[in-house]
Amino acid sequence: MSHTLDDSAWDLLFRQARSHNRWLDKPVAPELLAELYELMKLGPTSANGSPARPVFVCSAGAKARLVPLMSPGNRDKVAQAPVSVLIGYDRGFFEQLPQLFPHNPAAREPFAANAALAEATAFRNSSLQGAYLMLAARGLGLDCGPMSGFDAAAVNTQFFGEDQFPGHQVLVNFICNLGYGDASGLFPRHPRLPFDAACRVL
Amino acid sequence: MSHTLDDSAWDLLFRQARSHNRWLDKPVAPELLAELYELMKLGPTSANGSPARPVFVCSAGAKARLVPLMSPGNRDKVAQAPVSVLIGYDRGFFEQLPQLFPHNPAAREPFAANAALAEATAFRNSSLQGAYLMLAARGLGLDCGPMSGFDAAAVNTQFFGEDQFPGHQVLVNFICNLGYGDASGLFPRHPRLPFDAACRVL
Repeated sequence: MSHTLDDSAWDLLFRQARSHNRWLDKPVAPELLAELYELMKLGPTSANGSPARPVFVCSAGAKARLVPLMSPGNRDKVAQAPVSVLIGYDRGFFEQLPQLFPHNPAAREPFAANAALAEATAFRNSSLQGAYLMLAARGLGLDCGPMSGFDAAAVNTQFFGEDQFPGHQVLVNFICNLGYGDASGLFPRHPRLPFDAACRVL
Repeated sequence: MSHTLDDSAWDLLFRQARSHNRWLDKPVAPELLAELYELMKLGPTSANGSPARPVFVCSAGAKARLVPLMSPGNRDKVAQAPVSVLIGYDRGFFEQLPQLFPHNPAAREPFAANAALAEATAFRNSSLQGAYLMLAARGLGLDCGPMSGFDAAAVNTQFFGEDQFPGHQVLVNFICNLGYGDASGLFPRHPRLPFDAACRVL
């Protein structure tokens, strides 16, 4: 195994990658979604809790239910993208800890006793997993278009109900389009904060 | 630019990478921290808001202030790691939007008017940026050891005060050790949820 990434990998993951708004009429192979999950699932989460619950919205019927729940500026993007993944998080993720963190049978207790801790942990770690998903998607040759403008309560009701995850309390964190981006829809990259504005070294 | 990552890159980022508990006595070159930030800053955030404020704790003096604020099980890890980065988030990140999202002068308003929205957005997006930091660190040949067991109120007071980020409300999200891991301190990798348990395809 090489010890660092090469320039082409950095370009693919960060330097040349952009958030896309328009999408080529090119489908995402279904097996790519499984491949994507098999990679993203390996990224670290607190006590291996793995709270993310990705819902891949692919079919025309499911897309038609999702589009009107998006903010007006995001509706065309979702309608056009081959896949929109809803990054959900399971507030009851700790019920899986006996399976996911088997050496410590007491690991679930602090979360079971403290709903605010469980919520913050699920939200933080599902966000980490959403980032793993986006970078893994880029590494598989896909483009991403993350969005947080949508009616979260309606998305929860329609896509994370008892029929999808029986017995679990799953809520949406953010939504990300996946596909092959149409670069003609890109604006120039926005500036980032310089090191000295964002970071400190102590 | 290549269109997908190769096996050695997947190994480095996900497949062979592990969260480390023990660290080799090998320093992290200071210029690597700047290189790390220049990569992680390129990952997507909502409205390019870039709320993460990484504080790299490197010196013996700063480490000595941090160690007692960690949970007992994390103290030796922090004491031994060459660098512990505190991933902070700026609840007032929207004040930078005129610089970071210049085409829409009104972008700051929804956040300025709604503290809960600003908090959730800063927490979610600084978590994404923390994941970008960890994967970029792995790509640069470093190992990571993320932790969420510490006295957050004390870390906020000691490391994110008015002296470090004047005029800003910066709070800690999570902490990650960086360095060169000692593989003798690893346990076998924990299991992950299978695709059908975590994901849905609609």
